[in-house]
Amino acid sequence: MSSLTERKARLIVHGDRPYNAEPPLDRLRAAYRTRAGDFYVRCHGDVPEIDAETSRLTLDGAVDTPMDVSLDDLRGRFRTVTVTATLQCAGNRRADMRAVAPVSGDPWDGGAIGTADWTGVRLGDLLRAAGARTGTDRHVAFESHDVVDGRPYGVSIPLAKALAHDTLLAFAMNGEPLLPEHGFPMRAVVPGFAGVRSPKWLRRITVQDHPSDHPIQAGDYKLYPPDVTAETADPARGHTIDTLPLNAAICEPARGAVLGPGACRIRGYAVAGDRAVIRVDVSGDGGRSWIQAALEHAPDAPFAWTFWTAELDLPPGEHDLAVRAWDSAGQTQPALPDDVWNHKGYLCTCWHRVRVRVT
Amino acid sequence: MSSLTERKARLIVHGDRPYNAEPPLDRLRAAYRTRAGDFYVRCHGDVPEIDAETSRLTLDGAVDTPMDVSLDDLRGRFRTVTVTATLQCAGNRRADMRAVAPVSGDPWDGGAIGTADWTGVRLGDLLRAAGARTGTDRHVAFESHDVVDGRPYGVSIPLAKALAHDTLLAFAMNGEPLLPEHGFPMRAVVPGFAGVRSPKWLRRITVQDHPSDHPIQAGDYKLYPPDVTAETADPARGHTIDTLPLNAAICEPARGAVLGPGACRIRGYAVAGDRAVIRVDVSGDGGRSWIQAALEHAPDAPFAWTFWTAELDLPPGEHDLAVRAWDSAGQTQPALPDDVWNHKGYLCTCWHRVRVRVT
Repeated sequence: MSSLTERKARLIVHGDRPYNAEPPLDRLRAAYRTRAGDFYVRCHGDVPEIDAETSRLTLDGAVDTPMDVSLDDLRGRFRTVTVTATLQCAGNRRADMRAVAPVSGDPWDGGAIGTADWTGVRLGDLLRAAGARTGTDRHVAFESHDVVDGRPYGVSIPLAKALAHDTLLAFAMNGEPLLPEHGFPMRAVVPGFAGVRSPKWLRRITVQDHPSDHPIQAGDYKLYPPDVTAETADPARGHTIDTLPLNAAICEPARGAVLGPGACRIRGYAVAGDRAVIRVDVSGDGGRSWIQAALEHAPDAPFAWTFWTAELDLPPGEHDLAVRAWDSAGQTQPALPDDVWNHKGYLCTCWHRVRVRVT
Repeated sequence: MSSLTERKARLIVHGDRPYNAEPPLDRLRAAYRTRAGDFYVRCHGDVPEIDAETSRLTLDGAVDTPMDVSLDDLRGRFRTVTVTATLQCAGNRRADMRAVAPVSGDPWDGGAIGTADWTGVRLGDLLRAAGARTGTDRHVAFESHDVVDGRPYGVSIPLAKALAHDTLLAFAMNGEPLLPEHGFPMRAVVPGFAGVRSPKWLRRITVQDHPSDHPIQAGDYKLYPPDVTAETADPARGHTIDTLPLNAAICEPARGAVLGPGACRIRGYAVAGDRAVIRVDVSGDGGRSWIQAALEHAPDAPFAWTFWTAELDLPPGEHDLAVRAWDSAGQTQPALPDDVWNHKGYLCTCWHRVRVRVT
């Protein structure tokens, strides 16, 4: 196994403590299942070192039978399943919003996203075994080993999502144990939701009648209107970002690429939260005309991204490539960063544009 | 009860045979539950006259026990439920697309939508009682008494949607028997889907392993890319319009209204297919700045529209009002008709704009 230092050297690093990094887009597009070393890393505190042998998981709160089990017990007791799913940071593509006005947070390009085969046990199986008490406004809160501002990392998801078929406690990524920066020895994987709701280094699960009161849940990862500022933002009025919206990015060619004459192959990804991507339109003239890309999708993986490929004949000169996707409800993306701008820089879903020059 | 002729006189009539009509937007916005006489009418053939006493419903295909029952038997055998749900034509707001280029079909303004309390029996209860055989690609086909191009009206929906909690065979609308033009004595109500999948005057339900081959299902109500024309359209490659995308409209003031000085009250609706509307932004300057509207929604009605109200102080002069909604996945609408244009004029989801003059 490579070292964290070696892996870091291959990524675009936005920060060291906490460690945040993304892969270059061409390497992201190289494999439908993202190599673990190419998978974006989003941390809120330092990467904790966990001993898998002695590590335990607690399940408590509104359950008939609380659990406190070793990870080996957990794997022995529940059926192991593998789910192909995309995880994406709510700040993916934030850099594109800076064209409008400053935004807070790391300037992610389009690489704060990745797809893997996640292997683990279903969170729903644990909850059912423990006799989780259901109700209209129940939440499942997570607490992790990493420390953020002196408190354990904490978030929550609605109970219905916790019980869903594809929501996992994962031990492995693409058939290998999780890397330390991806949550070793165990993380939650909540497909379709923003990555922040899939905590790494998980240690405690609590069924409760209110969302987590940890600042990451209660204060961060909220969508605000464009007129709200850091000074006026009221987290109680912001929308909690769970399911992610439709998005797409051009991974090749890169911004500023200088291309030879002839057919230009354009490749990228699209993703639609809890819906399917039904069409991807690609433009060579900034959105005045469009062609349809060929789509590639894993079977039986409703929460995994769609890879797409298109070819355009571009004459010599400067060209504005653009991409927009359509979801299974016939919904598409807004054109401009202005249309989605918010001071936190979340959910940058406008058309992704890449200017290239053909010689 | 008023006559069809009297009701027709109160609507904006796009055609007599088939009869298609919508209410003026201010009357649409007057009541959260749309009065039956104000509810848009979309027909594909003539309105059939059905005798409720002798009318029967057949359920056949991939079921263990086919049914052929009178409507009285149906109501006696299954539990009656009421669901508050919005129905909307896939062509709602089509008129706005004509700013880009011609489109086929009736030029609906924003009134091809309405919300009612629908009372009937759950389609899923029938399917379960008949022992419908489930499978990964099963469909439920509907056939009706109205005749379109010499064949009974026919469409289909995926079996999973037919089994969903809120999918009904409805006898009543807002507590009254259905009006003839709304499907008397019985229609399907498939909330969240385009109105075309909620056939009126229903007579037959078939569980099968393929979608309906009726032209309305197989050929019409497909979403095409902007470069596809009537000549090049291949229905097998178009996207079947089922779940509808996020949309919103300004119902008051009307386009071209001349307003007195002072606060201008702006009211309308928003709707999000199978998602929730979480925010509605209203602009008095064509989309350069936005305020947030107050939202009104029926409880426990996931497929019902959201009413919204905002107030803007507008100085004397011309003003471009605009509205855009946001759904529970943080997705919003494209700005321009150009962004959504297709030659059939379906799914016009760009910001709704209304120019007014303040004296």
